[in-house]
Amino acid sequence: MKFEYSNKVSCMHGSIIRELIKNMSDPDTISFAGGNPCVESFPVEDIRRISDRLLRDDPAGCLQYGTTEGYTPLREEARKFANRHGNVIKDSDMVIITSGNMQVFDMMARLLCNEGDVVAAEEPSFMGCYNAIHNCGASLAGVPMESDGANMEVLEQVLSADPKPRFYYTTPNYQNPTGVTTSLEKRTKTYELCSRYQVPILEDDPYGELRFSGEHIPSIKTLDTQGLVVYCGSFSKILSPGMRLAYCAGDPDIIEKMTTLKQVCDVHSNAWAQHVCYEYLTTADVEKNIRGIQDIYRDKAAYMMECLDRYLGGRVSYVRPQGGMFIWITLPEEVPMLEFVQRCLDYKVTMVPGNGFLTDYDVPSQCVRLSYSLPPKEDMRKGIEIMGKVLDSFLQK
Amino acid sequence: MKFEYSNKVSCMHGSIIRELIKNMSDPDTISFAGGNPCVESFPVEDIRRISDRLLRDDPAGCLQYGTTEGYTPLREEARKFANRHGNVIKDSDMVIITSGNMQVFDMMARLLCNEGDVVAAEEPSFMGCYNAIHNCGASLAGVPMESDGANMEVLEQVLSADPKPRFYYTTPNYQNPTGVTTSLEKRTKTYELCSRYQVPILEDDPYGELRFSGEHIPSIKTLDTQGLVVYCGSFSKILSPGMRLAYCAGDPDIIEKMTTLKQVCDVHSNAWAQHVCYEYLTTADVEKNIRGIQDIYRDKAAYMMECLDRYLGGRVSYVRPQGGMFIWITLPEEVPMLEFVQRCLDYKVTMVPGNGFLTDYDVPSQCVRLSYSLPPKEDMRKGIEIMGKVLDSFLQK
Repeated sequence: MKFEYSNKVSCMHGSIIRELIKNMSDPDTISFAGGNPCVESFPVEDIRRISDRLLRDDPAGCLQYGTTEGYTPLREEARKFANRHGNVIKDSDMVIITSGNMQVFDMMARLLCNEGDVVAAEEPSFMGCYNAIHNCGASLAGVPMESDGANMEVLEQVLSADPKPRFYYTTPNYQNPTGVTTSLEKRTKTYELCSRYQVPILEDDPYGELRFSGEHIPSIKTLDTQGLVVYCGSFSKILSPGMRLAYCAGDPDIIEKMTTLKQVCDVHSNAWAQHVCYEYLTTADVEKNIRGIQDIYRDKAAYMMECLDRYLGGRVSYVRPQGGMFIWITLPEEVPMLEFVQRCLDYKVTMVPGNGFLTDYDVPSQCVRLSYSLPPKEDMRKGIEIMGKVLDSFLQK
Repeated sequence: MKFEYSNKVSCMHGSIIRELIKNMSDPDTISFAGGNPCVESFPVEDIRRISDRLLRDDPAGCLQYGTTEGYTPLREEARKFANRHGNVIKDSDMVIITSGNMQVFDMMARLLCNEGDVVAAEEPSFMGCYNAIHNCGASLAGVPMESDGANMEVLEQVLSADPKPRFYYTTPNYQNPTGVTTSLEKRTKTYELCSRYQVPILEDDPYGELRFSGEHIPSIKTLDTQGLVVYCGSFSKILSPGMRLAYCAGDPDIIEKMTTLKQVCDVHSNAWAQHVCYEYLTTADVEKNIRGIQDIYRDKAAYMMECLDRYLGGRVSYVRPQGGMFIWITLPEEVPMLEFVQRCLDYKVTMVPGNGFLTDYDVPSQCVRLSYSLPPKEDMRKGIEIMGKVLDSFLQK
């Protein structure tokens, strides 16, 4: 049987990271490529205790069908959780529990984009959201990232263009892949511009809780007075990514439409995980656990930067992250990035080539993304030492 | 903010069942409306034991990100599980784990349908699949259900029409809502016709394990020699619907495209549930549990039919189900179905009006769907007694 696919299939991109990770099962490989949180950050014992109690006391709640918008107590608790950092989710907002932030990107693209539409997005940025937009037959208008957030002049050009973008995708906290934190000034400006041109904002905040240095900066959602911002937070980095649980909040008009769409996506997100997550948020010492997770990443990030300065210092540049899991390295102009990545892979050190985070993979990039979440320190040191030698081999040509 | 939605949003239907269920929280209501499996069928103690052990021995496997196509050992075990009933999943097929069968319908529609396309489907049938197809801007060509499966003459007309349907949706075992089992003759004919006109088949088998009378009939997938059939089986009715786990098998060409699409849908299905499901299939006494579930439904179905014959006998007609959870009642011509449903609701007895399962809700229906999975026997008797009195009140006019 030769299947005849829809036109959109020709727009579908697979994740090049997932392809890379498939080739990383070799245990000798030192991987800076994956975006997985470190396993030590999962509150395993809390999950085990809570799950066991719930399956004893409320098996039907965990195992029966649930409602599409999510377990009501968890939706309320997610609101409180987000609002520890200010009035992020307003009383007038509606909250939906989703199967990860990825599901929100997919649903936003489906709800807002027709074929041929344009979506504005920080560039580089998370390719999963780019792929969701491409899958709807829409194209991307990239807004270049700088060390304090997207370039505001380009953002205004993009927002004021004809056709108007259907929405603007931004990750203000420790963005993937750049690790950049958008300044308060630029968050305020972003909101002003999107408000002026009436372009909805999709504010992605998966790493928000992972701040390990600097001061908290209010989310763009906090500044919103007119229901312009759809905000998504995730439980992947503080509880478990394998559970696929996130929450999304915004104007009830769009969140209700998202709920109707979610009925056909997966009916509802895993009920058991939702119940465990609710009990975790309400009965465990979440603040202590989050401080513990921040400590882990602070330590790992600091050590990676120490190694980078030792072995690659003076030859590469990067923005020091204030949180999250990534460092974005810019190689010297004379080093061919893809060859550098390949040479490192030959020495069993992996990272993600920067063009994987561009709106067009074919545009050249001088950057690579390193993740410090997984490798133990000794591997980190060895891997970066190898990167240094590979870099030298290119520079000495 | 006034959001401007995509064209497809105007095609979106919510589930009328879910709307109904929302109004059923009144504990005095006797519900024949919901499609939930009965809680007694969940192997709670197995799940509890397995989950506890896994979180102790392999927390990373349960809680870390997984691969999009699913946990490899579970994919292999799903293949063996399906093949207890013959050579359903061939060696050349690929298996993907999905977040319920609903996700398969959504992905099939997205992969195969452009706006304006047509999909062939049994009618009445599961509205969730209809909604997924409508959401892609495609329309439905219904093939009327008879007591032994779809009408084959109409099926041929629909398959040979121009434009050709993008696929044919069928549920051969104890179909929702009719409870009808498609005969072997019609399964064979369905395959022949779809093969002749080269229309892929989406064979939905969520209730396959719930046979409580009659003999097993091979799935259409078993007859497939050319990769025409995409088969989906579910763990919702034998393990837990709240876990949102199903499996889908077919030609690697389409299952690989489904995998790429699933990356943007939800990255992967809940890893923890996948690990628990694998351990359940390989270490628990699954056959004994399934026999127990069949016993529960056999008993409930028999009692509902006894009540129907006692209180509604001679005035309504229905097909006796050989499995599954539903009985499809045809009311006498002179009874206005929607008024009958409303009158029963006034007496706190709920059921789903038959037009909810039609390709066009506005077409009149004389049928209602009753589910026997949830109400205890005494409620079942009371509810059907009330239905009988309501029916009489219409007939005595």
